[in-house]
Order: sequence, then structure tokens, then C-alpha cells
Amino acid sequence: MNSLKPLQERIDLFLTACISQMEASTLQQAMGYSLLAGGKRIRPILVYLTGQMFNCPLSKLDEAAAAIECIHTYSLIHDDLPAMDNDDLRRGKPTCHIQFGEDQAILAGDALQTLAFSLLAKSELIDANTKINMINELAYASGVAGMCLGQSLDLQATHQQIDLEHLQKIHCYKTGALIKAAVRMGAFAYGENTKPYRLMLDQYAEAIGLAFQIQDDILDIIGEQSIMGKPKGSDLIHEKSTYPALVGLDNAIKLTEQLYQQAIDSLKQIPYNSQPLQDLAGFIINRNS
Amino acid sequence: MNSLKPLQERIDLFLTACISQMEASTLQQAMGYSLLAGGKRIRPILVYLTGQMFNCPLSKLDEAAAAIECIHTYSLIHDDLPAMDNDDLRRGKPTCHIQFGEDQAILAGDALQTLAFSLLAKSELIDANTKINMINELAYASGVAGMCLGQSLDLQATHQQIDLEHLQKIHCYKTGALIKAAVRMGAFAYGENTKPYRLMLDQYAEAIGLAFQIQDDILDIIGEQSIMGKPKGSDLIHEKSTYPALVGLDNAIKLTEQLYQQAIDSLKQIPYNSQPLQDLAGFIINRNS
Repeated sequence: MNSLKPLQERIDLFLTACISQMEASTLQQAMGYSLLAGGKRIRPILVYLTGQMFNCPLSKLDEAAAAIECIHTYSLIHDDLPAMDNDDLRRGKPTCHIQFGEDQAILAGDALQTLAFSLLAKSELIDANTKINMINELAYASGVAGMCLGQSLDLQATHQQIDLEHLQKIHCYKTGALIKAAVRMGAFAYGENTKPYRLMLDQYAEAIGLAFQIQDDILDIIGEQSIMGKPKGSDLIHEKSTYPALVGLDNAIKLTEQLYQQAIDSLKQIPYNSQPLQDLAGFIINRNS
Repeated sequence: MNSLKPLQERIDLFLTACISQMEASTLQQAMGYSLLAGGKRIRPILVYLTGQMFNCPLSKLDEAAAAIECIHTYSLIHDDLPAMDNDDLRRGKPTCHIQFGEDQAILAGDALQTLAFSLLAKSELIDANTKINMINELAYASGVAGMCLGQSLDLQATHQQIDLEHLQKIHCYKTGALIKAAVRMGAFAYGENTKPYRLMLDQYAEAIGLAFQIQDDILDIIGEQSIMGKPKGSDLIHEKSTYPALVGLDNAIKLTEQLYQQAIDSLKQIPYNSQPLQDLAGFIINRNS
């Protein structure tokens, strides 16, 4: 999706500056290795596009966008560890622990989480109350009632048959929470004016969050390894329950289309120009990596 | 040290309430298992005693005290992992990864870090600017320029001969940064009035931070395993450079005494009742576990 490119470049530049301002060390290298490895930058883009819809300048959104990408990257580093998903490749490159050793990879993940909260606290263009709102949101979405819980439940469900309800719960925590936080943080940057639209934004985020995960499951079956940068079929190898496995591939594809429509319907209730957020929803279900 | 008991009980109660308010899950259990395993609670006590010296009510210090213990505990869980120090026992109990598996232990550490920032952001009795100061301080002390860096350097120095200067640098980041943050956060809670005393407080914290670490090294040689709750001699087994190894046991003991005196001298320049903080410095160099 070409229209995302300027925002991807913006967040890449911002994150590169973050890392290069740190004193050089193996730890700093390991953090930069994973944080600057490209990726779609969906979460930062959600922060930017949501803020932009409310006419918030991008400069006020940089730290929030960067913070959420730091959290996402730390979770990938830890998820890839031998004790978790044991993946050797990520975005076509050796995973952090393959490159730097398990010990440094664990620490790189730890320090990236710290960096996320540090960035929000340090942000110069937003007031203290807004920062606190954002920190609260990001912590809630990523901690024991959010992303970490999702990963914990996901690991417990490996090698087990689970039903659709439980799978949806796992995804809601593991992927959905952070996507919802991205949209909320974008809205927070513009302040109280956005309150009447929080519910619609949440509905939008929930729909694309789930669609994103189902599309991940679908790509694990039908995706091109060269485009995805990781081996396909890993869900099957890890005996993970997936949407295609539980409802069939065709129904899983249909579900992403329904979720896309729900996302669009929610946005249409907001009297601002939501076209870029609508386009992003389309990108999420049509992506091939 | 009996006078510490009421504060140890206070932080234990507060942390217990934090964990019990969370929805039950394996992740929540693993977090509670390590967070509520006792321990000396030196860092929370430093927060309380520093705030108290400036007549700050303890109720305004609970979240800061709890947050720093969450960071400390997460670091212990991750340090104990097979990929790091590979320790099976901590405070006389199986380490978190022995009890819950490596995957859940990594996540428990992750979620405890998140909890630390969440607690500070949620604290009801301190204003938004003070919260931001505390979050900045805690993030700085624990991240890529603090505790995580110290652990990274420490792991790189294993099986290697390092000199005293490098050892001091490692400890300064690994242990010292968080102890300094504890004292600073206690002072922040009382606000701008404490600014003239920041330098003395930093000097106090630096002295006891280093003394604490040297005492750890000493106890690893002469301590009683039954009191410490972990096997002694582990530094030797891990081929870690220590103060006693580099300067000799007697000189190491002398060094802790000098640092104690420096700590007391710094406190005496502050025109508030610093007796409890002085007593804590004494406790740190006289402790046997």
C-alpha cells in the first residue's frame, strides 16, 4: 500500500534516531538489530492515521508511534526464543537470539520495553496528563491483562485442541490489545475532543485486530515464504490451533471480509475523514506478508 | 534490622494486594510467586525512608516502592534463566522458571516490568508531573543505560578477567542505578523542595549501592547457605570477577566500611533526620544474607 510509505519512513527515521542516540554497546546493537529490521509498522501507522484524522500534527504522535513499535518488537524477540516459539528467522533475517545469543536477546527485549515507557514519558510536545493516559493504555494493553497474557495462554494451548471462543480470546489479548491501544493513543494525542468517538474507534480496532490475526493464520498456509521472510506451515509444526484449522480456509477468508466490513461501518460513524484508516483495514486483509 | 519490619510488611501487603486484584491466570501466579517470595525489600524501603525523611506520607510512596520492587523482581526472574545465570534456587525456593517453565517465567518478568510503569501511572496521590519524573527515573535506571546494560556487560565478562574499573562500571549499572533511582523517587514524591539535597542523596545511594554489591560478593564466599537461601560459591562456579577475587577478601571488607562512612557523611549534610537512612546503610554492610 503505497500511501503508507511516508509514514513507514517517518517511523523508521524516528526509531533509527532513538537507537543511534544511545551509547554503543552490544545491548544497543541487539535492540537496533530487531527494532530497525523493517516490518510493516502497522501499529505506529495506526497511531499516526488516527491522530491525523483528528487533525493532530504528526510531530505530536512520534513518541507514541515509536513506543508501541518498541513493545511490539520486544514481544517478537521474546516470542522467537527457544523457550517460546523457537524461531530462527524473522523478516528474512536470523532472529535476535540467533544473532546475539539468548542472553542478550532477552535483555534487548527487556530494554526495548523500558524504552517504550521512557519515550512516552520524555515526549516534549504532549502534556503530562496525556502522557499518563498513554502510558496507562500501553501498559494495560501489553501486560498481565493484555499481550503477555495472550502469549501465556497461547503457549499453554500449544499441542492442545481449543475451541473457537478460546482461540478468539487468545488473539484478542495477544494481538488485539496492542492494536486497540495504537488507535486509542492516536486519539489521546488530540485530547478530550475525541471522546465521543472512542467506541467507534475501539470497534474498528477490534475488527482489524482480529482480521489481522486470521490473515496471519491464512498466510501461514497459503503465503509465499520468500515474501513473508519466514517459513510457512509453522503453525502446523507447532501444533497451534488456528482459524483455518477450526473453521476451514474458506470460512476464515470469509470472516476477514466480514471483519473488514465491520471496521468500515464503525469508521463511517465518525464525522472526520476516515479514508486512510479504511484503506489500512483493506491493506490488512489483502496483505501477502 | 527490626526497624525495617513495618516497612517490609507494608510493601508486602501492598504487593500482595496488587497481585490478588489481577484476574487469576498462570501468568498472574508466576508473577506473584516471585514478587511475593519475601526478600529484603531494600529498594522499596529506600523509597519509603527517603520520602519519610522529607515528611512525605507513606501513602504517597506505595506505588513508587512497589514499582521499583517489580523491576527488581523481573530482573531476578530473567537473570535466573538458563540462558543467563542458570540458577535453580532463589530465596530458598525453586526459581520461577523451575516452578512455571522458562516460557512463563520470561513472560512473568515481562509483565512485572509493565506492572511497574502501570503502578506509577495509576498512582492516585501524586500529580501527573511527579509521576512522569518517577517514570523517567525508573526507565533510565533500568533500561539500556542502566540495569539491563549492567547485566549485559556482566554476562559478557563471564569467563573473562576484568579489572577493578570495569567491575565497578558493571555494578554501577547493574545494581547501583536502581538503588539510586529508589532514593531519587522517594525524594521526587515530596517535590521540588528536595532539589538542594539531590547531590547528597545521589552520593549516599552510590556508596550503599556499591557496598551492597561488594557485600554480595563477600557473602558468596563466607555466607551461610541456609541463611542466604541459595548456594554459596556460585560466582566461582560461574567464573565471575568479584571484588574479593580482585582485591582480596580483607580489602573488600575494608572497602565496604569506607563506603559506609561515605554514605553517612553525605547524609549528614542534609538538615533532616537521616538516622533511618544511616541505619539502613549499616544494615547493608552488616547483613548476612
